Amino acid sequence: MKVAIQGELGSFSHAAALRLTPKAQIVPCAASLEVFEAVVKGRAGAAVIPIENSLAGSVTEHFDLLLSQPVCVRREYRLRIAHALIASPGTQFRQVKRVFSHPVALQQCREFFRENPQIRPEPFYDTAGSVKHILQQDLRDAAAIAGVHAASVYGGQVLRRGLEDDKRNFTRFFLLRPAAGTRPLPGADKTSIAFTLKNLPGVLFRALSVFALRDIDLCKIESRPMRGRPWEYVFYVDFRRGADQAMQNALRHLAEISESVKVLGTYPAA
Amino acid sequence: MKVAIQGELGSFSHAAALRLTPKAQIVPCAASLEVFEAVVKGRAGAAVIPIENSLAGSVTEHFDLLLSQPVCVRREYRLRIAHALIASPGTQFRQVKRVFSHPVALQQCREFFRENPQIRPEPFYDTAGSVKHILQQDLRDAAAIAGVHAASVYGGQVLRRGLEDDKRNFTRFFLLRPAAGTRPLPGADKTSIAFTLKNLPGVLFRALSVFALRDIDLCKIESRPMRGRPWEYVFYVDFRRGADQAMQNALRHLAEISESVKVLGTYPAA
Repeated sequence: MKVAIQGELGSFSHAAALRLTPKAQIVPCAASLEVFEAVVKGRAGAAVIPIENSLAGSVTEHFDLLLSQPVCVRREYRLRIAHALIASPGTQFRQVKRVFSHPVALQQCREFFRENPQIRPEPFYDTAGSVKHILQQDLRDAAAIAGVHAASVYGGQVLRRGLEDDKRNFTRFFLLRPAAGTRPLPGADKTSIAFTLKNLPGVLFRALSVFALRDIDLCKIESRPMRGRPWEYVFYVDFRRGADQAMQNALRHLAEISESVKVLGTYPAA
Repeated sequence: MKVAIQGELGSFSHAAALRLTPKAQIVPCAASLEVFEAVVKGRAGAAVIPIENSLAGSVTEHFDLLLSQPVCVRREYRLRIAHALIASPGTQFRQVKRVFSHPVALQQCREFFRENPQIRPEPFYDTAGSVKHILQQDLRDAAAIAGVHAASVYGGQVLRRGLEDDKRNFTRFFLLRPAAGTRPLPGADKTSIAFTLKNLPGVLFRALSVFALRDIDLCKIESRPMRGRPWEYVFYVDFRRGADQAMQNALRHLAEISESVKVLGTYPAA
């Protein structure tokens, strides 16, 4: 099966895709929209996207796309994120004056940059892509921050390991499939939904009560601004519950006080 | 009064600071932590920080710093964000092959990049900083995306205006002061708090009930991962309510089911 990822080969998405779909043929895409469209238009059978990092928070663009695109969440996976400093073979640490990486990865290595003020962080579009860039250009004053997997994909040299500020650094990935005709996998015990609310007093409290009154516990809540309606929000909520009768009742109840409700997927909890 | 901002002169933070504190002497800082420390250590009397954009969502690092640093929110301000394409004087639009800007600004001009596939977006540390960079290096194949204010600060030429996908694009800024000894301004009718919850069933619902039961309406809720405790969250909530008796009662009630509660500030709603 072809599996679309955002970013280059050697990225953390690549590593997660190999765990979720071990025999996948990886289809790298430049932009997140392209990844979703690959699934929707059938150029790939599935996609693997990062949705949330335990330090940096949500990948907000992916929340927006989950809402707007006809895809559904099939599985989740939690990957431990370890950042390495990777350079061209032969480059020594003291030669490194600038370090390329994705802004989120740079932000996760703040202590490394504080301890090495001679090194300037430079935002780049992708972690693995920054390794590819340095190797292709054979830059001698530069290194990249990425997973060690990227060093082996591009033939880079690992100068340092464990650059991340916090070792308890995980990224949660979703495996996405087209929404149409997909049934939850056996053992699916977690549900993600998105909803927008009518403008009523205490309406978010009422929305959460439809779950609390049925002993359905939420494990995450996230709000995202609605495009074109400043200071109004879409709410994204995860529950440790599959598509059972109580959940169906709660969603019907929620629809009474919502402008819109979308079930993003029911899947086995990681 | 000296007012610290993150980023260069000519940035949107600079524009917001001039509205919030018209006579301020602006102190540009490279990093957000530096901005907060300038206030805490007295190098500046106040700071102006972006906290939330109506399209891109929250500035997550600033939420973390509001929680960890002894500052308080004194005022809020909503600035309309309009992006312009700015180049060196004499550069023509057809020469432009790459466009530098802050990743959030690049993301807000996705349609511009779709319509102009010959132009490559390049993440840069700052919007106004990217204008400064292009002018200083006199790059002829490059332009920057920033507010028009930046063109006048650095002597750039505006090639295009209104690059933002959505004209209803606003950023909410906070004016921060040291936490110690600061009393709310007259007319303060909005309160921002942060809390972490005990691990109890339905605890978020209970937390929101302490406000709902007292007719205190929340206008925003945000969750952020806690450093070092993956998949546990800090909640950030805004209320349209000042520090009255009902609010004091609600906060005392909240403390019963919370691990920690911090009032980030009580201030006049924008």
